[in-house]
Amino acid sequence: MNRPLITLLSDFGAHDAYVGIVKGVILGLCPDARLVDLTHAVPPQDVRAAALLLHSAAGYFPAGTIHVAVVDPGVGSERAAVLVQTPGATFIGPDNGLLEYAASRRGIDSIVGLTRSEYHLPRVSRTFHGRDVFAPVAAHLANGVAPESFGAPRAALVPLGLPAPLTSSAGIEGEVIHIDTYGNLVSNVTVEELAAFHAPSLSVSIAGCASIPLVSTYADVEPDAVLALIGSWGHLEIAVRGGSAARRLGVGRGCALRVSV
Amino acid sequence: MNRPLITLLSDFGAHDAYVGIVKGVILGLCPDARLVDLTHAVPPQDVRAAALLLHSAAGYFPAGTIHVAVVDPGVGSERAAVLVQTPGATFIGPDNGLLEYAASRRGIDSIVGLTRSEYHLPRVSRTFHGRDVFAPVAAHLANGVAPESFGAPRAALVPLGLPAPLTSSAGIEGEVIHIDTYGNLVSNVTVEELAAFHAPSLSVSIAGCASIPLVSTYADVEPDAVLALIGSWGHLEIAVRGGSAARRLGVGRGCALRVSV
Amino acid sequence: MNRPLITLLSDFGAHDAYVGIVKGVILGLCPDARLVDLTHAVPPQDVRAAALLLHSAAGYFPAGTIHVAVVDPGVGSERAAVLVQTPGATFIGPDNGLLEYAASRRGIDSIVGLTRSEYHLPRVSRTFHGRDVFAPVAAHLANGVAPESFGAPRAALVPLGLPAPLTSSAGIEGEVIHIDTYGNLVSNVTVEELAAFHAPSLSVSIAGCASIPLVSTYADVEPDAVLALIGSWGHLEIAVRGGSAARRLGVGRGCALRVSV
Repeated sequence: MNRPLITLLSDFGAHDAYVGIVKGVILGLCPDARLVDLTHAVPPQDVRAAALLLHSAAGYFPAGTIHVAVVDPGVGSERAAVLVQTPGATFIGPDNGLLEYAASRRGIDSIVGLTRSEYHLPRVSRTFHGRDVFAPVAAHLANGVAPESFGAPRAALVPLGLPAPLTSSAGIEGEVIHIDTYGNLVSNVTVEELAAFHAPSLSVSIAGCASIPLVSTYADVEPDAVLALIGSWGHLEIAVRGGSAARRLGVGRGCALRVSV
Repeated sequence: MNRPLITLLSDFGAHDAYVGIVKGVILGLCPDARLVDLTHAVPPQDVRAAALLLHSAAGYFPAGTIHVAVVDPGVGSERAAVLVQTPGATFIGPDNGLLEYAASRRGIDSIVGLTRSEYHLPRVSRTFHGRDVFAPVAAHLANGVAPESFGAPRAALVPLGLPAPLTSSAGIEGEVIHIDTYGNLVSNVTVEELAAFHAPSLSVSIAGCASIPLVSTYADVEPDAVLALIGSWGHLEIAVRGGSAARRLGVGRGCALRVSV
Repeated sequence: MNRPLITLLSDFGAHDAYVGIVKGVILGLCPDARLVDLTHAVPPQDVRAAALLLHSAAGYFPAGTIHVAVVDPGVGSERAAVLVQTPGATFIGPDNGLLEYAASRRGIDSIVGLTRSEYHLPRVSRTFHGRDVFAPVAAHLANGVAPESFGAPRAALVPLGLPAPLTSSAGIEGEVIHIDTYGNLVSNVTVEELAAFHAPSLSVSIAGCASIPLVSTYADVEPDAVLALIGSWGHLEIAVRGGSAARRLGVGRGCALRVSV
């Protein structure tokens, strides 16, 4: 049998030992776990960015992977801590929309509230549930504890509430929902929505920059030109060949864009 | 038997391959090692920050863990290289205070100077003992080599010399010893020192900002308010709900603070 | 038999989940792989920096290690994807000079173009071959698939084309080829080229700063002084004790330097 595979995603950053501590807790309880960092550089308390990153990554992990995600502005308040089972993966973290985006797209089999303290660290702080609750629950689950042992079932997750694009016969109205490392502007328009149109005739406009060609690779435009393409997440992105679209166009998250026939 | 667990902490940063190289050396000698990064983003040559981070993390790792810590401004000079055994953990690194803070709080069983070159890489540089000395020693120890084989016993470690808080019946005089990723001001006042007082009646003052309430969670104050709380390390911290206390108050490490009854 | 060891080097950065995704693909196909990050903070699309880092790290890994390196400005264009076998290591990545520097110094046994799509992910994007091509090929190789199965042999690699230093009886003319985390200026002058001279009599000049002493360790100069030394990669470096040479001297990559007798 394969050793359990547990991924970690958070806004803990790299400057403290928080991520290392979470791993120490997991390996203390489940020495055989294989641990993979998705990223710990989520902008502080940015649940939406974390939810998109989690969804984009989870599909590339083998069935049975346990994903622990902790971006948790409500830690210490009444927000629930949950374990969510889907056909191919289990998600563990705060119930604040972070897990909902990835889990609902896979189909939710069950939701359990993490209320049984015998599966937490002996002393649970009010500031670091990643260490005190989510890490030990992930380790116990990896050790074979049944999901329903961790607490009472729950009916639904808090939704992430991403803005949906508006599609008409003239095109699609969307917006920028994330800016990646390269300065690419990731929109809420997905390859599925674009499939309703004949791609070669499409162009994109954003922030006064019109007629951006929708191409299939960077090499299709000149160096330094603005382009639109389907990025590796399956979303429409605005990019600059060899540069940063965010800097070039001076736009950020929330900026409207339009796909025109 | 579990595979050996080795943690790594340094100021190597992420921009070079130094951390990867250290792991290559360890895995070449001890292929079964499990490696966990605590952090490699310690401010360059900041032994105190590294010592605090090491201590804060080591308590969450299982018994038998080997901690390799390398923040080493004296590399190539006369500073000693040491292996320190404590009841639950072994610490390996330069003898410059880095290991002393964590080790002395656990109880030091033995200290060995790393002078036996047959356990180092064949060619030891004067700039990178993390790779040439500490990594191979950790791997050989993980393989079962006895600690006393690595060199001669030593009587004591160089102390870290953290400033101690001053407690009186009127309160506690402390100072900021670390600033974390979120801009929280971590003080040298610990939960043990605060236990001598009746917490609900306490307030904190720092840098002209008086009467900061000591609360138990962020949600106890309004968004954007300054608060004091016991952080995840067991130290008194000054924070801003949803913001950075370091930026708000314009203070850095070494700034005095006072806990008043 | 040891579990396969696979290293990863890229310019993906830490802000997205790209590195985690690559690991998910590898572990899905080869659950036993041990994964080590060299670095993912290569400056975006900087093939030269990546090639130097890869070469500097590969020598510290045990025989049989598989190195996956992805800095790939030509992704989606006609550049080839290759697997390169050398006596002690296998390199996988784009054929743009990135692998050539490390591989040619070890001796190239064979080069294979990665054209057989049955070893790629079912749907190969035009933007993320790290995930779609290089990760699955590395995993299949680790599982025992023969290198020649991945595609047709190729005769040669695209060369990196580093500037070579010029040696005369009066000294060596070199240039800065990399700036490391500490602000050290790494030159193209190696310990082998310096061996032709009598080191104690050598000094270095750069950017109007003359007579920089070539010493063997930082402690040989006063705090804050400029020095030259052989760094951990075996290259001549200009450094400042306790500071940044790049900032002090105001120079960057490409700046000429001279080693004088």
